[in-house]
Amino acid sequence: MTLPLAVILVSGGLDSCVTAAVAVQNFEPAFLHLNYGQKTEKRELQAFDAIAGHYGVSRRLIADVRHFSQIGGSSLTDPGIPVSRADLQNLSIPSSYVPFRNANILAIATSWAETTGAESIFIGAVEEDSSGYPDCRKEFFTAFERLIAKGTRPETRIRIKTPLLHMTKSEIVKAGIKLGAPLDLTWSCYQDEEQACGECDSCALRLRGFQRVGVEDPIVYRKRPDYR
Amino acid sequence: MTLPLAVILVSGGLDSCVTAAVAVQNFEPAFLHLNYGQKTEKRELQAFDAIAGHYGVSRRLIADVRHFSQIGGSSLTDPGIPVSRADLQNLSIPSSYVPFRNANILAIATSWAETTGAESIFIGAVEEDSSGYPDCRKEFFTAFERLIAKGTRPETRIRIKTPLLHMTKSEIVKAGIKLGAPLDLTWSCYQDEEQACGECDSCALRLRGFQRVGVEDPIVYRKRPDYR
Repeated sequence: MTLPLAVILVSGGLDSCVTAAVAVQNFEPAFLHLNYGQKTEKRELQAFDAIAGHYGVSRRLIADVRHFSQIGGSSLTDPGIPVSRADLQNLSIPSSYVPFRNANILAIATSWAETTGAESIFIGAVEEDSSGYPDCRKEFFTAFERLIAKGTRPETRIRIKTPLLHMTKSEIVKAGIKLGAPLDLTWSCYQDEEQACGECDSCALRLRGFQRVGVEDPIVYRKRPDYR
Repeated sequence: MTLPLAVILVSGGLDSCVTAAVAVQNFEPAFLHLNYGQKTEKRELQAFDAIAGHYGVSRRLIADVRHFSQIGGSSLTDPGIPVSRADLQNLSIPSSYVPFRNANILAIATSWAETTGAESIFIGAVEEDSSGYPDCRKEFFTAFERLIAKGTRPETRIRIKTPLLHMTKSEIVKAGIKLGAPLDLTWSCYQDEEQACGECDSCALRLRGFQRVGVEDPIVYRKRPDYR
């Protein structure tokens, strides 16, 4: 049986790896990675390739969106803005916000999906740990599906799938383990490339997720504060 | 009086030049150019810089979207697909279609607009000469405005302005002349970079526009067929 094709956004992090693990159950995967000039891009691309190798994915696209560095407004891409220390009690729109990032990502994914005939786009957005990002909410993804319907060929039908949207990080860790996702191959740290820093928002959320499940995160950290 | 800021998409072609001429009447311009790997990019960028120089625009952003070449599906970016000869009687979705291109362009423009505080985005889309492009229609731009409202900070208000949308090419030529737009600095040909070919869809539509107005197009053509 031939599975339908799906474009899967794979940054190389935990969430996108688990999203891929969900998607490959029912879809032939095409992996899309964005290089938007973040400090840890090299390490993330290495993780992307490792995860793609794990799933035997031959359709891979790496899109260069480094104009985000020029647009700035984000500590991920602007060397002048330091990456924030985690404050899990007080998540507002963080300094790592790249304005309208998911719209850019989904626009590229849609172009690729329409060309290849993919019928779905999977993105590992999570509302809980990105409550401040306006483009990480269900209503945004719904609006984007409507935009696809308006902006593509009449016969094109592309759905946006966000299987992790309402999951907590602990639930994502559990789902990844259950699905046999290669979590040891992922990279989430916004700050470092050799050992994860353990202190940026992304590390803190990830570590807390594993700690609450009671499973050791298989990647290497410089520090492992207790975030429970 | 300080004018509000607007991001203006400037490919370097006739339409974007006239769009800029409209915008600068009421806005401080920020010029955005996309390099999406088209055959004539070098010539278009030269036109972009010339038009920006004409209007004294210091805020310029050139975004690299060459992943369109990898996505393919278009004769503009895929060397394997020849550029069509013009058939102005029979415009369906042409082979120069880059799927969902305007969504990609507007997503970048929105990111830049939100970062810089621009309140409008000007794009020189024209329904008449792109009837086959689903992402060149009013309803698409309206859907995109709704997407911006959902996907940006709560206080952000960005409007999409399409002053040429319902104009014919002749009306655009007339408007450009009336506004003193530097039409001699523009480039529209999809095929060549030294002299415009005069035969691709873009040249044909442009030439027909000038011919119907009864004004000579100030740029150099290899051939000038009569398209009236």
